[in-house]
Amino acid sequence: MLQKAFDNVRKNKPLIHNITNYVTVHECANIIIACGGSPIMADDIEEVSDITSICSGLNINIGTLNKNSIESMFIAGKKANELNHPVLLDPVGAGASKLRTETAIKLIKEIQFSVIRGNISEIKALSNGCKNTRGVDADTNDIINENNIETIINLAKKFSEETNAIIAITGAIDIVANKNNVYIIKNGCPEMSHITGSGCMLSAMTTAFICANHSNELHACAASVCAMGLAGEKALQKMKNLNAGNASYSNLIIDEIYNMNRDNFIKGAKYEYR
Amino acid sequence: MLQKAFDNVRKNKPLIHNITNYVTVHECANIIIACGGSPIMADDIEEVSDITSICSGLNINIGTLNKNSIESMFIAGKKANELNHPVLLDPVGAGASKLRTETAIKLIKEIQFSVIRGNISEIKALSNGCKNTRGVDADTNDIINENNIETIINLAKKFSEETNAIIAITGAIDIVANKNNVYIIKNGCPEMSHITGSGCMLSAMTTAFICANHSNELHACAASVCAMGLAGEKALQKMKNLNAGNASYSNLIIDEIYNMNRDNFIKGAKYEYR
Amino acid sequence: MLQKAFDNVRKNKPLIHNITNYVTVHECANIIIACGGSPIMADDIEEVSDITSICSGLNINIGTLNKNSIESMFIAGKKANELNHPVLLDPVGAGASKLRTETAIKLIKEIQFSVIRGNISEIKALSNGCKNTRGVDADTNDIINENNIETIINLAKKFSEETNAIIAITGAIDIVANKNNVYIIKNGCPEMSHITGSGCMLSAMTTAFICANHSNELHACAASVCAMGLAGEKALQKMKNLNAGNASYSNLIIDEIYNMNRDNFIKGAKYEYR
Repeated sequence: MLQKAFDNVRKNKPLIHNITNYVTVHECANIIIACGGSPIMADDIEEVSDITSICSGLNINIGTLNKNSIESMFIAGKKANELNHPVLLDPVGAGASKLRTETAIKLIKEIQFSVIRGNISEIKALSNGCKNTRGVDADTNDIINENNIETIINLAKKFSEETNAIIAITGAIDIVANKNNVYIIKNGCPEMSHITGSGCMLSAMTTAFICANHSNELHACAASVCAMGLAGEKALQKMKNLNAGNASYSNLIIDEIYNMNRDNFIKGAKYEYR
Repeated sequence: MLQKAFDNVRKNKPLIHNITNYVTVHECANIIIACGGSPIMADDIEEVSDITSICSGLNINIGTLNKNSIESMFIAGKKANELNHPVLLDPVGAGASKLRTETAIKLIKEIQFSVIRGNISEIKALSNGCKNTRGVDADTNDIINENNIETIINLAKKFSEETNAIIAITGAIDIVANKNNVYIIKNGCPEMSHITGSGCMLSAMTTAFICANHSNELHACAASVCAMGLAGEKALQKMKNLNAGNASYSNLIIDEIYNMNRDNFIKGAKYEYR
Repeated sequence: MLQKAFDNVRKNKPLIHNITNYVTVHECANIIIACGGSPIMADDIEEVSDITSICSGLNINIGTLNKNSIESMFIAGKKANELNHPVLLDPVGAGASKLRTETAIKLIKEIQFSVIRGNISEIKALSNGCKNTRGVDADTNDIINENNIETIINLAKKFSEETNAIIAITGAIDIVANKNNVYIIKNGCPEMSHITGSGCMLSAMTTAFICANHSNELHACAASVCAMGLAGEKALQKMKNLNAGNASYSNLIIDEIYNMNRDNFIKGAKYEYR
């Protein structure tokens, strides 16, 4: 199943509309290309409806949201819903400011998302109402481990039921759930948190995966999360061999997605489905 | 001729004002430095006139245009015209939204550009009035090849006559034309479309080339296009040797421009002039 | 002293709020992580007060300032002052436009900065009132060398006395001064000016250093300047070994910060304190 989802991105070459932050936008564009899609970034109120109409799906990332881009997120999101295009939300830093939390909550109310992807602190901030998060990184008290994983799976399923979206919570262990089923994914490594934008990149790539696999978005989402974690593992080896650091690591991860194929993808994917 | 144009950028170190998108802006800055120029990015209405006045030329790229930056493009473009500074237009995604197409057309009407550089879909969208393009990439039906090249040369010459600008259409084969003459350039490789911003980088670098070669902008523009394609070829070898991917490839291209010299430039340039 | 300042960043992991330009923002984020901090970028008027409140310090960089971000700089800066958080100013391009010069001067008047870091042209533009600078790079007439260093030290001390901020002037020789004392730092190499954003990166990292060393900001600032220069030297060797260029060099510098430890830091730091 998952390798088919992986293949379909390269076959269908989905064009993805991104309303995203200016910190990691370049990496988001390159990873969409690396996995087989084609990115377009556009956030002006006057054009987002046009742009989203020619695309297959929409990636909304609130990383450096502002008055204008927020309005564009609503316009584009509603248009994409109208056209039945998948829409993904990355609620970067939800919980860190009132503006981020409230914007994310309002987006979830007014737009039907296919996927909401965040770290555990962001997802808790949205599912629990209000809670402070430590900036854009997951709170250390929130780390997903073997002890709390069942609680978090239940939280994800419940939040999925409420939002009718797939919930992807990424961390030391990744969870991809709808209200009934869950993928528990163990790819990845702690060093992925040493680069800016690993979450943003995953969200951008996941949008391409769900657009290329419209009929089975849960599998597609899990495939994207596995691919990202696997790329992180492979790139880490390269980084160490080169005595490189986090800046090079960021590029090496994208490179690994670019060079990944069906066979090494499925060989490396570590997941449990229930 | 072309190697002199190449040398002049390193000799004259032109300062280039860029009003550009936030996706590939970092790469545009680094490639301007790599070829011998110096970049400054500024897009606020209050300062673009000041900034363009201290520069040698202006690069306008509509990649993530917005209400404010559009107004700044007109202010800076008119100021640059007044000062007789070369101005380049990169109409990223013209044809993909009404805002982009109309902004590009209005810019061409109100500002005298030295060069308009785009892919064939963008140039067609502007020269033909209106036509849908597939996002920011050239439509696959639009690919320049041996069969349609004469038609496209004629389109470029005609559009040059209408706009009094050099028209640079880049793709599998690159065309750099004024109303009378044309360079047909065969440097480059398909993998250059696997990175975000190869077009933006070329436009930024070309602005430096025409500023350093004010008296012969056609040659300067052709030299820049050759240099970019050649850097793409050389970087591809490196990418393959390193088992790298598109993220590293982007940096390797800029690195090749940084390390290119007059001799290996002219040895590698593949062009026909008529 | 300096190695303790270096260590404290990794120990304290300060969260840094950045209001910065969209050219080098990605590199600023990665270098903050590389040195041990955690970055958050946020510039909307509605959220900067919230964001700065959860952070340890604030980095204000006017590289691509605009109407909205300028207002946010004042709001966040005043809030940070209220909370006794260190605030750093990088007056990118002060002297190059009226907007930049006046904004920087007004920021210095209304906000108490811990550190003001710029090249000599920028610092002169602010300390002397008005003077044209060549874009975002230091004027070649302004290069710090053995002949003019005493004059520049005096200028830095005087400007420090006026602003009650540490003044960091970076160039061929770096000066970090308060009104009484000065560090003269000889790490670094000319190639660091061949990448976009070496100054911005240093400012971002320095904010993390002063936040982690609140009780001795002069040492912290000097430690950051030494670390940056040392990373530049080490990365240059790697760049040359790889036949790489300026784009890779930028990443290699961040990588060197990531891999730097207390021992190789203090072994490589070249400074005089008086």
